[in-house]
Amino acid sequence: MEFVRIGIIGLGNMGSSHCIQIHIEHKVPGLKLAAVCDISEERREWAGREFPGVPVFEHATDMYQSGLIDAVLVAVPHYDHPSLSIEAFSHGLHVLVEKPAGVYTKQVLMMNAAAAKSDKVFCIMYNQRTNPVYQKLRELVQDGELGELKRVVWIVTDWYRPQAYHDSGSWRSTWKGEGGGTLINQNPHNLDLLQWILGMPKRLRSFVSFGKYYNIEVEDDVTAYLEYANGASGVYITSTGESPGTNRLELSGDRGKIVVENNKITFHRNRIPEREHNRSNTEPFKRPEAWVCDIPVVGTNEDHVGIMKSFTQAILKGTPLLSPGEEGIHGLTISNAIHYSTWTNDWVDLEQFNHDHFHELLLERIQHSKVEKKLSQKVVDVTGTY
Amino acid sequence: MEFVRIGIIGLGNMGSSHCIQIHIEHKVPGLKLAAVCDISEERREWAGREFPGVPVFEHATDMYQSGLIDAVLVAVPHYDHPSLSIEAFSHGLHVLVEKPAGVYTKQVLMMNAAAAKSDKVFCIMYNQRTNPVYQKLRELVQDGELGELKRVVWIVTDWYRPQAYHDSGSWRSTWKGEGGGTLINQNPHNLDLLQWILGMPKRLRSFVSFGKYYNIEVEDDVTAYLEYANGASGVYITSTGESPGTNRLELSGDRGKIVVENNKITFHRNRIPEREHNRSNTEPFKRPEAWVCDIPVVGTNEDHVGIMKSFTQAILKGTPLLSPGEEGIHGLTISNAIHYSTWTNDWVDLEQFNHDHFHELLLERIQHSKVEKKLSQKVVDVTGTY
Repeated sequence: MEFVRIGIIGLGNMGSSHCIQIHIEHKVPGLKLAAVCDISEERREWAGREFPGVPVFEHATDMYQSGLIDAVLVAVPHYDHPSLSIEAFSHGLHVLVEKPAGVYTKQVLMMNAAAAKSDKVFCIMYNQRTNPVYQKLRELVQDGELGELKRVVWIVTDWYRPQAYHDSGSWRSTWKGEGGGTLINQNPHNLDLLQWILGMPKRLRSFVSFGKYYNIEVEDDVTAYLEYANGASGVYITSTGESPGTNRLELSGDRGKIVVENNKITFHRNRIPEREHNRSNTEPFKRPEAWVCDIPVVGTNEDHVGIMKSFTQAILKGTPLLSPGEEGIHGLTISNAIHYSTWTNDWVDLEQFNHDHFHELLLERIQHSKVEKKLSQKVVDVTGTY
Repeated sequence: MEFVRIGIIGLGNMGSSHCIQIHIEHKVPGLKLAAVCDISEERREWAGREFPGVPVFEHATDMYQSGLIDAVLVAVPHYDHPSLSIEAFSHGLHVLVEKPAGVYTKQVLMMNAAAAKSDKVFCIMYNQRTNPVYQKLRELVQDGELGELKRVVWIVTDWYRPQAYHDSGSWRSTWKGEGGGTLINQNPHNLDLLQWILGMPKRLRSFVSFGKYYNIEVEDDVTAYLEYANGASGVYITSTGESPGTNRLELSGDRGKIVVENNKITFHRNRIPEREHNRSNTEPFKRPEAWVCDIPVVGTNEDHVGIMKSFTQAILKGTPLLSPGEEGIHGLTISNAIHYSTWTNDWVDLEQFNHDHFHELLLERIQHSKVEKKLSQKVVDVTGTY
């Protein structure tokens, strides 16, 4: 195979942007836009004008059966990510699914099972994994430079979204349309990075507010307390109601403290590990000596293009994926668990997560929703917003 | 009255340091060290050598009745702060009490009642109120510069105390000796500043670990989730087990975000308030413009000397106290509530705090304590540790 023929399903904000990057800007070597698909006539007409010669489909199944594509990029609303991915696998297609993997873990478990049965490449658009800052941070942690984790505090309050955003689509910020608020829309990236760097927390307890800042039914303010298997504790804070907000990730470990803020990594490195110091030290107020180290970050953040490149190379050459699709369940489990903890006013054990009950409680919210949005979808330029 | 004759009761780390600042270094104009008192013979002998001519007492009552003093500085172990202060008021003495006001709110309510009945000056050693950084921050908040509070996150993990510290006194880090760990020993300053700057939270829920990092029975790791009456949320994090640790206070409000770290105040100021922007804005991804402002901090941090000066001037000239004794109950209520929430595994409403039940649960812990420390007290230089 010389190149991968991809079909993009869903020509909203993200799907349209991916089409342009592939077909107009030729940013992904080996990847050819072979078809597009959208249920909206307006979007199909747009594609016909923008990408003359590229076949346009109304229905996914027709595109899947067309023989025109080897792979599909699923960029439809969240709820349909798993079903359209599962159908694609059944047609022998490679799948790149937008984040989140789905809205509730139950459907994502089914998607992962379909992927496991298939011999096709399965990838998820966790484009922030291409950020060299987080790649470097992960390397430091996994190489043991931080030592055993004691605490993580991630303040992610820079996802500001005004009321105009929530009003910009009828599906937006509703249980029925998106299945959640900022946890399911903006935070999948951060929740994935959190588990990608540190592994999964063991249990959590959350404090979630719904429609605190905006006229929406879903969450716009979240605090979660996390506990890890080794006893380390953590706090995850996010909101769409604060501006300018903060994105500051602090990891505290036996060998010091790492702070990531403003795309800089600062490592306050203990000359000897704290636990070792503690065992031998006899002075009541003595600390380990700590050095403030600026950690070099090399490389460029290729974002979505980087994930599409990784996907293409995995198909063409069998290289490992930066962001395997099966891993989408992890961040979503944290996300679902944060909702679930507030809904049930209790701890949630992530290893024993009750996928069925979460789904039931989500369905209840959809059923009791009083939201009636009259607005229609509007595709906007999303450069720099993800 | 030309000067205030003060008696200092308790010649441990803090009391000894106060004696030296007053009597040897003459740092507090108008304040004269007129007597000292300690139950330890060794400490009385030390005082006799260091401060020749200053009367030395073994028992507080004798010093109180001596007619030699107008005021007392109570620097004994925490549990005895209220009782010795109450007795001092009954002898017509002005009282400066070390922090914390007491170990449990029930006893502090009694102390405040005694102070209210007295016409004497009552002050508490919240020496961090003299820090011009926190004074400036308070001014910004109280003048409305931040706008309505949305969130506070205070990471106070720079109170590192190794095992050698916990082993340095038989009373240290025990329920019986101190009535708690880092909440009652190091954090009273921060919890006071928190309420001094923002007012009291309405309710909280906590996640406290006891003896997580050290061989102690009391807490050394704390996370608390706070809610304010206006709906603002907060997180307070502290630990004695991390080094180098962090002291970073972030306030997020309608008019921007203020970050205090490394004794610097940075105000990310919105050009127009976020709520106003949100009402008029029609663009889905548009934020208010924010300016990064370095806030000037003027003045010196006089610390304990500053509080002793304020106390002296209040007695001599009737000037307002920087740190009225009656306000000691606020930070202690937060502290007690953080213990109580973990003990009862429930929310704590601070306006309806169950003072009696907290006290009962504390007594249970004292009763069931298995700690037997064989170590004796050692007075160490505490410069720069409070």
